Amino acid sequence: MIVTVIGVGLIGGSLAIDLRKTGFATECIGVDANEQHAQQALQLGLVDQVLPMEEAVKKADLVVVAIPVDRARQLIPVVLGLIAKHTVVVDMGSTKAGICERVKHHEKRGNFVASHPIAGTENNGPEAALSGLFNNKTTIICNKEESHLQALETVQQLYEKLGMHIRYMEASAHDLHIAYVSHLSHITSFTLGLTVLNIEQNEQRIFDMAGSGFASTVRLAKSAPTMWAPIFEQNAEHLSEALEAYIEILQRFKQLIGMGDKARLLALMNDANDIRRILDGIQLKSNNFNLETRVA
Amino acid sequence: MIVTVIGVGLIGGSLAIDLRKTGFATECIGVDANEQHAQQALQLGLVDQVLPMEEAVKKADLVVVAIPVDRARQLIPVVLGLIAKHTVVVDMGSTKAGICERVKHHEKRGNFVASHPIAGTENNGPEAALSGLFNNKTTIICNKEESHLQALETVQQLYEKLGMHIRYMEASAHDLHIAYVSHLSHITSFTLGLTVLNIEQNEQRIFDMAGSGFASTVRLAKSAPTMWAPIFEQNAEHLSEALEAYIEILQRFKQLIGMGDKARLLALMNDANDIRRILDGIQLKSNNFNLETRVA
Repeated sequence: MIVTVIGVGLIGGSLAIDLRKTGFATECIGVDANEQHAQQALQLGLVDQVLPMEEAVKKADLVVVAIPVDRARQLIPVVLGLIAKHTVVVDMGSTKAGICERVKHHEKRGNFVASHPIAGTENNGPEAALSGLFNNKTTIICNKEESHLQALETVQQLYEKLGMHIRYMEASAHDLHIAYVSHLSHITSFTLGLTVLNIEQNEQRIFDMAGSGFASTVRLAKSAPTMWAPIFEQNAEHLSEALEAYIEILQRFKQLIGMGDKARLLALMNDANDIRRILDGIQLKSNNFNLETRVA
Repeated sequence: MIVTVIGVGLIGGSLAIDLRKTGFATECIGVDANEQHAQQALQLGLVDQVLPMEEAVKKADLVVVAIPVDRARQLIPVVLGLIAKHTVVVDMGSTKAGICERVKHHEKRGNFVASHPIAGTENNGPEAALSGLFNNKTTIICNKEESHLQALETVQQLYEKLGMHIRYMEASAHDLHIAYVSHLSHITSFTLGLTVLNIEQNEQRIFDMAGSGFASTVRLAKSAPTMWAPIFEQNAEHLSEALEAYIEILQRFKQLIGMGDKARLLALMNDANDIRRILDGIQLKSNNFNLETRVA
């Protein structure tokens, strides 16, 4: 199968590596608006060749769109207009309702599968691409009833080949949930980074004291702004609600600390400790999957 | 040297393991108000024996106080009243101004060293203790001019034996800085955990979508409330300022997302990306230290 990857950064590049390695792609064509990234992808051996978008799309059996969500929303209708009848188009963006709405009445809607593989690192660009990034992670496919069966099967095979768990959701539910378990934590990390960098201007030795807890909590503040600004824009409504809920709890902490109300602080943190169940669940899910893979 | 460890949890227990392993302690006596923890510490082999506090303190050359900061503030003056003339007392608490103020005029102030080894995990209790926890991390010694030279040297040797980098600070500067690079990130994690657990009540499948970024950012929400409530209480003033600065930036994000102001969102996140310099610095410091250790 000839696979064209539009956007050969962390996500597109990592995908290209493993699709070639597993033989899912017999040929992998790279497209990138950033000429330097395109050349890097070629030199790093992520793709077999680099072509202009139109040519690359016309040659493909499968087109993977792995670019920021604002550009994806503009480009996907164009790509659908260019492809052959059998060609499947899949996107990897972190917001889904907007793109599903945008292509809803496109004559080739059935060729398109809206998806979101939940994998990544805080790094970006072709040099950040790595084999195994998707293995044992979850991917969401949205509004599957709007895709043709053949398109859906191709994308399912793609994700199974990468070792991913597939879940199906409505686009609107996806956007709501992901606001809480991904977009919100990016904002809180960016904010933590900014807060500490601001105080550093007066207290230069402050980072002598930063430990592993700080590093872990602030890690996402390294993420690419050009990727995240469009995501925040497209998921503004759900994210605003999540931020409001978050700020309300934060104000509660501030109030209780100000009042020295240790009993209520204890109760609040005891409730928060319940997150252990969730984190253990994530771990368990991952272990079970490994087991299944080994048995199969 | 006979070392008595008061509080044989994550910190005290990990310390005991390595002090015995390196031979710094010829004997290690454990004390714990929680009888079950004391017995666990004995069974796990963290300490050689468990004794009542008074007896254990009187036998010790070095007393390590590794209990929540509210109980430490009550106990340390009592311990100083019990020790032999040569005995050194060191604490491990995450707030320093209060305890320094509390013992300032104690006749045995010179025997006491106020310190804060910046190491830990989100787990607690004797079973969470592990060898190597302190290796290659930073420890802060506060108001060293208030300690006798012999006491200071004993504590320096203790931390060098554990492989720690020693820094010296005024207690008030310590408490200010640690509010930003440790206490604040614990509050933001607890708050993130609570926010997502609240929405989970209506959206049960939400955690299907949680990835490694969420897990990393929320990890500290697993921390022990009984340890953290007293820390927040004792560092209330600096922490309130840190929270205010944090909430202000968070409100800014919320406002820009609400307005769809992508240009200002990009600028804000670009500023936050500067945290890369800090995180790389933490990594570099750690690598340099490894190099020095190997050369020496």
